[in-house]
Amino acid sequence: MKIALFQGPAHADSVDDALRVLADRAREAAASGARLLVCPEMFLTGYDIGVEALHRLAEPADGPSAQRAAAIARDHGIALLYGYPERERNTVWNSAMLLDASGRPLANHRKTHLFGELDRRAFAPGDRVVTTATLDGLCLAILICYEVEFPENVRLAALAGADLVAVPTALMAPYHFVSRALLATRAYENQVFVAYANRCGQEGTLEYLGASAIVAPDGAELARAGGGEELIVADVDPDAYAHSRAINTYRGDRRPELYARLASPHEP
Amino acid sequence: MKIALFQGPAHADSVDDALRVLADRAREAAASGARLLVCPEMFLTGYDIGVEALHRLAEPADGPSAQRAAAIARDHGIALLYGYPERERNTVWNSAMLLDASGRPLANHRKTHLFGELDRRAFAPGDRVVTTATLDGLCLAILICYEVEFPENVRLAALAGADLVAVPTALMAPYHFVSRALLATRAYENQVFVAYANRCGQEGTLEYLGASAIVAPDGAELARAGGGEELIVADVDPDAYAHSRAINTYRGDRRPELYARLASPHEP
Repeated sequence: MKIALFQGPAHADSVDDALRVLADRAREAAASGARLLVCPEMFLTGYDIGVEALHRLAEPADGPSAQRAAAIARDHGIALLYGYPERERNTVWNSAMLLDASGRPLANHRKTHLFGELDRRAFAPGDRVVTTATLDGLCLAILICYEVEFPENVRLAALAGADLVAVPTALMAPYHFVSRALLATRAYENQVFVAYANRCGQEGTLEYLGASAIVAPDGAELARAGGGEELIVADVDPDAYAHSRAINTYRGDRRPELYARLASPHEP
Repeated sequence: MKIALFQGPAHADSVDDALRVLADRAREAAASGARLLVCPEMFLTGYDIGVEALHRLAEPADGPSAQRAAAIARDHGIALLYGYPERERNTVWNSAMLLDASGRPLANHRKTHLFGELDRRAFAPGDRVVTTATLDGLCLAILICYEVEFPENVRLAALAGADLVAVPTALMAPYHFVSRALLATRAYENQVFVAYANRCGQEGTLEYLGASAIVAPDGAELARAGGGEELIVADVDPDAYAHSRAINTYRGDRRPELYARLASPHEP
């Protein structure tokens, strides 16, 4: 399956702007043959825009913006994954929505591992690490930004059968290491694909790093963006990595009976 | 604390040879100011030498070779960590012994995650992932080769308080990725130092990759060996990475209540 990542928007002043960008990029991605377009964290609204704005712009998972995104998916015949602030009654989450190519909601993931005050001031933590869906026969797991930095989360996704871990993100300076080295390790140690769609440009006090990437199970970069707005595309084909899976037998060689401490409550 | 890694030996035909190399390199490491010398997996005997030889050369943890290594530690006033085949009654493990600078045994680690037929034909699996000791005020954890490739194991070492994960190893082609990218991720995601001492040269059917390294909590390489015999040295000072620890708060941000599946028995 060919997939596309959109890095951006560098500038979008409103949800309307973001949805226009989504329509443009969905058209472009579909024209390239991609079956899925992954967009960054908080794609619809912006991220470092203040708690008040995030809460004001938050919508239910099936709210009006999700309906408009579904129409875009349908119009261009491409699945979409994008970040947005989700509201349900009085709670707001940092979420990512996956719509299939007919606009039907396939999965909605709520970020479980919140990043610093930026997240904690605005969002409640989700309580389900692994959110998966099947797309064109591929098992896709959704993680948001900081979550992929925890080996526990990507391992849990792999144990749930993920072939591809798709990550809407908002990686900023000085965390270059995450995109440069950590992503490839997550792919390699779990023998999965990782698709990491970042924001770019300056927003509030944050300098987003771009450097979105699609990484293969053998750790190779299939596609890598620069620092500005960009659409990148790669083919995600687990069968092409049979050799890598055969010589990296981590999943079968794990010894979960020795790992109890990983799941026991934090000790100071 | 300054530490040294010895990459080699490329050629050692006997345990006597290996102990001579150990004495030479202990002298050199101590002269450079190092307080610990880390040597590769199966340093005393060789690794791909066949099951019969490994079993014949296996010794108890306090056997004659350990006594001679202890004398070397004492003579040069430097702690030693080295791999060897350990026998206790009828069982043989792939082990690593840590001696302090007075020759006293501080810790003995038995490899828990065996690598392919090479290990499985010769060794029983250890049943304790985390083996730690305190050296010059630093908490050191020992892992052997393949073990460091599992994020679970390094996380468990970090949760047990490790500042430094010391890894006698025998990394061969085509697993370049481990040394090139995975090690730095282990250091970064746990905010620990990783010291990875590899073999080099050809042995049996194996081409060892060298590329031993000492990596810091921020993912930076403090020292990196080439492909041949070499001693590398670096300073391991957790206090110098206070900034890295302050901005990478993974340990405190873990959510172990969501990780039960990591420790549950393998499901097909």
